[in-house]
Amino acid sequence: MRKVVVAGIGSTPFGRHPDTPIETLAVSAADAAIKEIGLPRSEIGAVYLGNFVSGPLVGQEVLAGLVGDGLGLGQIPCTKVEGACASGGIAFRHACLAIASGLCDVALAVGVEKMSHADTPSVTAALNCAMDNRSDGVSGLTFPGLFGLAWQLHAKRYGTGRSDVSAVVKKNKRNGLRNPLAQMGAALDDDEINQSPLICDPLRLFDCCPVSDGAAAVVLVAADRVADLACPPVEVLASVQTRGSARIAGHPDLCSFEATVSAAQQAYAQAGITPKDVSFVELHDCFSIAEIVDSEDLGIIPRGEGAIWARDGRTAVDGDIPINASGGLLAKGHPVGATGIGQIYETVLQLRGTHPNQVANAEIGLTHNLGGTGVACTVNILRRFDV
Amino acid sequence: MRKVVVAGIGSTPFGRHPDTPIETLAVSAADAAIKEIGLPRSEIGAVYLGNFVSGPLVGQEVLAGLVGDGLGLGQIPCTKVEGACASGGIAFRHACLAIASGLCDVALAVGVEKMSHADTPSVTAALNCAMDNRSDGVSGLTFPGLFGLAWQLHAKRYGTGRSDVSAVVKKNKRNGLRNPLAQMGAALDDDEINQSPLICDPLRLFDCCPVSDGAAAVVLVAADRVADLACPPVEVLASVQTRGSARIAGHPDLCSFEATVSAAQQAYAQAGITPKDVSFVELHDCFSIAEIVDSEDLGIIPRGEGAIWARDGRTAVDGDIPINASGGLLAKGHPVGATGIGQIYETVLQLRGTHPNQVANAEIGLTHNLGGTGVACTVNILRRFDV
Repeated sequence: MRKVVVAGIGSTPFGRHPDTPIETLAVSAADAAIKEIGLPRSEIGAVYLGNFVSGPLVGQEVLAGLVGDGLGLGQIPCTKVEGACASGGIAFRHACLAIASGLCDVALAVGVEKMSHADTPSVTAALNCAMDNRSDGVSGLTFPGLFGLAWQLHAKRYGTGRSDVSAVVKKNKRNGLRNPLAQMGAALDDDEINQSPLICDPLRLFDCCPVSDGAAAVVLVAADRVADLACPPVEVLASVQTRGSARIAGHPDLCSFEATVSAAQQAYAQAGITPKDVSFVELHDCFSIAEIVDSEDLGIIPRGEGAIWARDGRTAVDGDIPINASGGLLAKGHPVGATGIGQIYETVLQLRGTHPNQVANAEIGLTHNLGGTGVACTVNILRRFDV
Repeated sequence: MRKVVVAGIGSTPFGRHPDTPIETLAVSAADAAIKEIGLPRSEIGAVYLGNFVSGPLVGQEVLAGLVGDGLGLGQIPCTKVEGACASGGIAFRHACLAIASGLCDVALAVGVEKMSHADTPSVTAALNCAMDNRSDGVSGLTFPGLFGLAWQLHAKRYGTGRSDVSAVVKKNKRNGLRNPLAQMGAALDDDEINQSPLICDPLRLFDCCPVSDGAAAVVLVAADRVADLACPPVEVLASVQTRGSARIAGHPDLCSFEATVSAAQQAYAQAGITPKDVSFVELHDCFSIAEIVDSEDLGIIPRGEGAIWARDGRTAVDGDIPINASGGLLAKGHPVGATGIGQIYETVLQLRGTHPNQVANAEIGLTHNLGGTGVACTVNILRRFDV
């Protein structure tokens, strides 16, 4: 397998784009990424597009081909991949594989979603397509329900309380204020969080990521072509995709997602590093409690201490291990299919040293993208190219 | 790249499965395919699932992970791929690539769709997700409309009339009678076709494939593992995926799909053969006229002669180049995401010499799966392993 670098990156702001067609969002992000690399677009040999629910919410499939059309690409394979909220990460991995396996030297990964135009019942129904609807969905369970249960178990086991979890909310919302692409950065205090509407006990409104539109794209290139690039490359050390149970009853422990644990272990092995070598993390905080569970599953923070580290500022941008300096899903937003690629976008900016909320001495970044009830997961590890 | 063989195969009947959940259809086909190979399912390293519209029509996504769950597989990558009606062929190609690139020795490709439970407006809207809805869809155009236009141009240019096209319908419907998996085999005469309802001039009901449910699956294995197999392998000589325009206005000629032409040329080159070396073809006859256009695009029949060859019996099961001995989409049915894998299933049976409508001296089979307005295409070439 050949070494791969992330070269060009592009992204729309995450938020509301009521007047922009879904394929235009994707083309806009991809076009920016392609322009960065300084290679003719005829060199692109494959497109992978991550999207979750453009069928139910937009009435438009074949997005990968439409985007290939819009970008003026040739008769190359253009493939939509779907794994619920991990769709973007899956697209990234497949673009990596296309290059690593020698199929092509240049590949485009793009993620896109458009959701904010739809009414709340439609969005809820669409998001629930990520559940096993014959077991969990039929019981009336939604994703806030799942993560509410996870928090209750975490609270019982480790004493994780409202103010601990609020530390995660405050950090990510504050980080979002420094990210021009973020949908909902905010300077919140505990009272504002405590008084926000109860969504699913104990989760309140500010514990939940918003409904978002947006697209992000990255161009991957074979490492032996870096001399041809017009932009600074970032090395892909590992790109791993795993599966977990699609049913809540299939999880032995709601305070852990086996797909994350397995993906992280494989990614560290593939990269030849340990969690201690990671400089910063962009992880899947679809809910505040998810950041806590994820950071423990990734081996970044000891079991039961996720909230404590957030409370003590150890996961802040200037802390021991900055988590979601971008604002994460909570503040940057969660246009589902775009999220996993958006995490790569943020990580590349950090490793280039040009992020608007820069982590000091950023050498190795990890991204974590989780789908559904942990049914799909990707973990990627990227490194500054000159290290 | 390593050589790949198709080992196990499985399929549900194509037709109506109102009481069977979509993931159960897929698991059932995949389970049969896995049982054929005689290897432990722990050897499976990747799952690719082709599906088009389970979101809008079933309210269920993450099907790849659900199927992994249902099959009792481990924490392996399970990926849904989508390219409209070519989704199954795309799944097959990616399972091939997973082995060819050395990622794993055994991979599962499964395709599934469930449509017959939905009302006609819902099915029409779902199928139109394969169009560019901002250009073609908004004009009221549907797929019968597109292929009606193609026939009108073919008629004007080559004089292709009703009775010529009916030869394709009669052949495929008759082939379907010999296929126990087929939804709508029939012995039709010209009068019955002529008197069937007009769908979109000149297309009549029997010119259109039915709305179908069903699943098909194949297990792919590295060629150096054939000694371990409990079933006869079939060699993959070529697996190619291409893109064409998503918009009708993007096609310079409605009597040809550039994605097919390009995929076929690449596939012949990859396989090191010419069209004359192909023993039989399973191609994408979503409409009768599509078989004519496809067979010309594939270089199997000279331009303008597709209907003549059918009329003269040259594409019958005992003709010069048997096309759709399975009954094709017209008679076997078209559970969209399953179709491309179903074509592989039929081809493997032919190359094993055990097809219920067996082609004599079947040595090399070609499958052709076309999505949308030609926005995505796959062509695969398989060979009897002992040749």
